[in-house]
Amino acid sequence: MNNKGILIIISGPSGAGKGTVVEELKKDTNYMLSISATTRAPRKNETDGVHYFFKTAEEFEKMIDDKKLLEYASFCGNYYGTPVDYVNEKIENNKEVILEIEVQGALQVKKIYPDAVLIFLTPPSMGELRKRLEGRATETPEKIKMRLDRATEEFGIIDKYDYIVINDSVENAVENIKCIVKAEKMKAYRNLNLKSVLKGDILNA
Amino acid sequence: MNNKGILIIISGPSGAGKGTVVEELKKDTNYMLSISATTRAPRKNETDGVHYFFKTAEEFEKMIDDKKLLEYASFCGNYYGTPVDYVNEKIENNKEVILEIEVQGALQVKKIYPDAVLIFLTPPSMGELRKRLEGRATETPEKIKMRLDRATEEFGIIDKYDYIVINDSVENAVENIKCIVKAEKMKAYRNLNLKSVLKGDILNA
Repeated sequence: MNNKGILIIISGPSGAGKGTVVEELKKDTNYMLSISATTRAPRKNETDGVHYFFKTAEEFEKMIDDKKLLEYASFCGNYYGTPVDYVNEKIENNKEVILEIEVQGALQVKKIYPDAVLIFLTPPSMGELRKRLEGRATETPEKIKMRLDRATEEFGIIDKYDYIVINDSVENAVENIKCIVKAEKMKAYRNLNLKSVLKGDILNA
Repeated sequence: MNNKGILIIISGPSGAGKGTVVEELKKDTNYMLSISATTRAPRKNETDGVHYFFKTAEEFEKMIDDKKLLEYASFCGNYYGTPVDYVNEKIENNKEVILEIEVQGALQVKKIYPDAVLIFLTPPSMGELRKRLEGRATETPEKIKMRLDRATEEFGIIDKYDYIVINDSVENAVENIKCIVKAEKMKAYRNLNLKSVLKGDILNA
């Protein structure tokens, strides 16, 4: 089998439990979260190359021009993006690299990086999603409505995703994602090297 | 998630261990081997609808004309084929249906039945394949050479397969095939029903 990692993109509505699932995946040392580039100023305790790659606006815009970002967006006056070189290096070193990004960014990455695996994480039901959002002390009724409307929108494009994982329990969701990654690694198109390996092997057998 | 079964097609060179792997999969009651239609006469102890669907040549040819076969071939003057109605019925009942067929038949099925999952089972190396073939008391050196040549040919089209599973141990191969089936069931395109279920669910939430 080939020994490259997989770029895993996890999206899903706010309240689907992406953060918890990603934290759990990261406990497996084969999995790691990608590090974003940003023009935001570092906060106390934030280290360049650990929490973010901190860039000036000029540097970031040069990365855009040089196509050094898998995707990027601006938020509250700052740029955030995924550096392609960093992802490639980890993939080559057989690491599964996780990107937790929203739907539009995910589709942007898939275009540039067709080998990426797009996973849409969903709560078992919208009733459950509402319950989870209401359980967050920080959410006003308006915000909850906005988030549910957004979820409805996002469900409209799940057919653009490769897989749908139902987060009925973190344990199941993590196990299912790991199974997807394992299966993806057995995809024929990721293992065409075997063709010549086994053929050459026949001649020498 | 949808509750339809998956049509699994397993191919691979003679000596790859298809038979043993399929026997092991069948121990899981969710998995079953498809039953072929044939014009061959039933042998003692063979029951119609259990070992084969026994057909006259006329009946079989009518099945061909009516497109009631996923694939068929003739061998030693008899027809053998896979009845589409039987496969469909089992898939609808959430059974994983296994077809163990050679490469050309597999590609024929994939055309008619794009949801089928094509798995190419391969020995870990050609040296191992030769060893396994030599270990069979029934194989002459000429037959072994023929089978290795055939294997070389088959490897030429593994890129037409969905997955490659290396049969380094039966246990691993079976676990890997089950993981592939599990992942396939999470494919977004197999679960588009969730789109309306969850959307409807939002409105009622």
